[in-house]
Amino acid sequence: MGALVGNAVVGQAGGPTAVINQSLVGVVQEVQKYSHIRNLYGARHGVRGIINEQFYDLLRQPTEMLDLVSQTPAASLGSTRDKPNREYCERIFEVFKKLDIRYFFYIGGNDSAATAQIVNTLAKDAKYPLRVIHIPKTIDNDLLVTDHCPGYGSAAKFVASAFIGDNLDNRALQGVKINILMGRHAGFITAASILARQREDDGPHLVYVPERPFSIDQFVTDVEAVFDRYGRCLVAVSEGISDEKGELWASKVSVLKQDGLEKDAFGNLQLSAGAGSLADYLAGTLRAHCKNIKRVRADTFGYLQRSFPGYASPVDAWEARLVGQMAVSYSVDAEVDGSVALTRLPGTTYAVGTRLVDLAAVAPEHEPKTKVLPDHYISEASNNIHSSFREYVGPLVGDLPKVGWFEQIAEAAVSGR
Amino acid sequence: MGALVGNAVVGQAGGPTAVINQSLVGVVQEVQKYSHIRNLYGARHGVRGIINEQFYDLLRQPTEMLDLVSQTPAASLGSTRDKPNREYCERIFEVFKKLDIRYFFYIGGNDSAATAQIVNTLAKDAKYPLRVIHIPKTIDNDLLVTDHCPGYGSAAKFVASAFIGDNLDNRALQGVKINILMGRHAGFITAASILARQREDDGPHLVYVPERPFSIDQFVTDVEAVFDRYGRCLVAVSEGISDEKGELWASKVSVLKQDGLEKDAFGNLQLSAGAGSLADYLAGTLRAHCKNIKRVRADTFGYLQRSFPGYASPVDAWEARLVGQMAVSYSVDAEVDGSVALTRLPGTTYAVGTRLVDLAAVAPEHEPKTKVLPDHYISEASNNIHSSFREYVGPLVGDLPKVGWFEQIAEAAVSGR
Repeated sequence: MGALVGNAVVGQAGGPTAVINQSLVGVVQEVQKYSHIRNLYGARHGVRGIINEQFYDLLRQPTEMLDLVSQTPAASLGSTRDKPNREYCERIFEVFKKLDIRYFFYIGGNDSAATAQIVNTLAKDAKYPLRVIHIPKTIDNDLLVTDHCPGYGSAAKFVASAFIGDNLDNRALQGVKINILMGRHAGFITAASILARQREDDGPHLVYVPERPFSIDQFVTDVEAVFDRYGRCLVAVSEGISDEKGELWASKVSVLKQDGLEKDAFGNLQLSAGAGSLADYLAGTLRAHCKNIKRVRADTFGYLQRSFPGYASPVDAWEARLVGQMAVSYSVDAEVDGSVALTRLPGTTYAVGTRLVDLAAVAPEHEPKTKVLPDHYISEASNNIHSSFREYVGPLVGDLPKVGWFEQIAEAAVSGR
Repeated sequence: MGALVGNAVVGQAGGPTAVINQSLVGVVQEVQKYSHIRNLYGARHGVRGIINEQFYDLLRQPTEMLDLVSQTPAASLGSTRDKPNREYCERIFEVFKKLDIRYFFYIGGNDSAATAQIVNTLAKDAKYPLRVIHIPKTIDNDLLVTDHCPGYGSAAKFVASAFIGDNLDNRALQGVKINILMGRHAGFITAASILARQREDDGPHLVYVPERPFSIDQFVTDVEAVFDRYGRCLVAVSEGISDEKGELWASKVSVLKQDGLEKDAFGNLQLSAGAGSLADYLAGTLRAHCKNIKRVRADTFGYLQRSFPGYASPVDAWEARLVGQMAVSYSVDAEVDGSVALTRLPGTTYAVGTRLVDLAAVAPEHEPKTKVLPDHYISEASNNIHSSFREYVGPLVGDLPKVGWFEQIAEAAVSGR
């Protein structure tokens, strides 16, 4: 049976990443190899661009511009958080039929995989031949099945780099510094901060992830213990930490609490709305309780983690390109639909392979719908990440900025001259 | 008259920058050329390291480590915010006499220049031959006399880069995004965000600096006008904005207000304590007042602006090295004390020279003690920065990450196929 002849649509959805356009350009490059895909339409702002028939003509863009776009952070097609319902999907099909769309490549997270799955089911019900391939992307690294998600490595690189600098800053002007990092349910981004450690006393000294309940009393005790030991303390905290009852700390302390925190169309809390106050609240708590700690500061890294330009992890960029290319390749070779997953190959040298997995496996109807940080990486006291996590995240990040330091000399060596 | 023979001390003070160690290594390299400076002691944590006699022996550090340190952000000697009083300075002199210190190089901002000036005066009163040279450093770019401050260009590069990415993020998922930037009194860092603009509709669309009062009503009106025009809005706000009465917005809205904001030893408000809440407050205000704007986010860039590693502006790094070298050079050639200033040379190609200026000019007793953004760069409506500012800041930042975008095609061109 020959390949399905027709046009293709590619879209991008969810939060941008530093390498989501690599996947897009991977799709474009691979489609260029096949004559059975006649046109490749880039949907503006994901599914919304489909129903509004707003597209970029991706096979007619200059090669130089494609190269530049591939290195550009944030979805160049525009993104969306629209969650199509039945009526929305019917409108999508009207457009697909009208434009003879036979291939739908959707780059996004698990919500996007769910959208792809609905569209796929509708196509099958209508006996409309359509290949639907989901291309994974998320800085949170919380997709099921795949070893890791394109986008995560670059976010991890940014965070690890920032901690290298902030650890030096904290060394130069000693005190307590708290950094709030992205991660609603999964602590992968926050855990990547441990890559900043080089010397025995380097921070982050404490790491709190959403996988474990966060107690403010324990936090104060933990910080005091580190401060007593090193005269300073650098802390990494996920924005998604909750208390023992499961209530979000960001929600509890937000200056916006009276309005409630905003939810997106998928019911996800928009934690960025209250993360700034969380930083200030944690810092204020330490100031109030730890009278011997003179200097407490707190920052929230925010969107820089996902969209800082010119700083992507090379491995992440390459893998993001690969999953885009493979999505097209799978759509040609097999009459199956699915999601492209990365598999880490066994051996001492880091290497990955790809495979196509069921959409239902990536966007299941039952819980858990997302992955969290494996328990064995989290310390028993729930306040740190074991160095074994370096083996997982290190290869995804690649080289980090090198820094130097002076060796200390005894005072007597100077004074006694 | 021959050069003063003896030992030298170099120290770093105030908030770290990405290139403050370039100045340090510049001092080390230049001192290595002269035999009359017998030892170069690096004071740990500035003046505190002097009175505690805690030093690094800087002429006996491996060259490779010096190279690495020069590229390392944040003060490698350790920094301090100590403000020496008379008794403190007398202890400094005891150590200087004991160690035969004849040269004191102090890398820092205007507070450090003031410290250098006090030490200098005490030395003169005691008829103790001592060369005191202040080496400028501050990301705020608020030092008097000098055209610009080493450290600023790298902070500006980080901010401009972050805005390039965030503008793309805001384009991909449209809405309002507010970024709070460093700058207590001077809007230089915030103004650098305009370097991110490439296309006519690129952000930042609104820029608020501390030099003008900030009205929340005007802010809401400004954002609504931009949103009506572009369907999105990217805003840059200095952490140091005040209301018409001069009260800081960060102080007014802080979740920590009950404790009051922390002041450092120089009486400077530590705005980072409340900047996270300011971000949340501004976002919350827009959510409450602008019902047609569905998506509002806010971030505070924080310390990343001054300590992100591996991302310094090459020009800034070079100039920071230069002022360190010249400080030593001036100390040898002339029997004067002072602060090294950068002068922008006339001509179409960017070039700088250095000169030695009076310490009193950089750390005057009278107001103003610091520089602010010149009025002609700020728009009449106090909500933007004129593009003429690019000519000032552009050369200090150097190349920014290149990004690409697709050309839009009319819907009919696709639909009508």
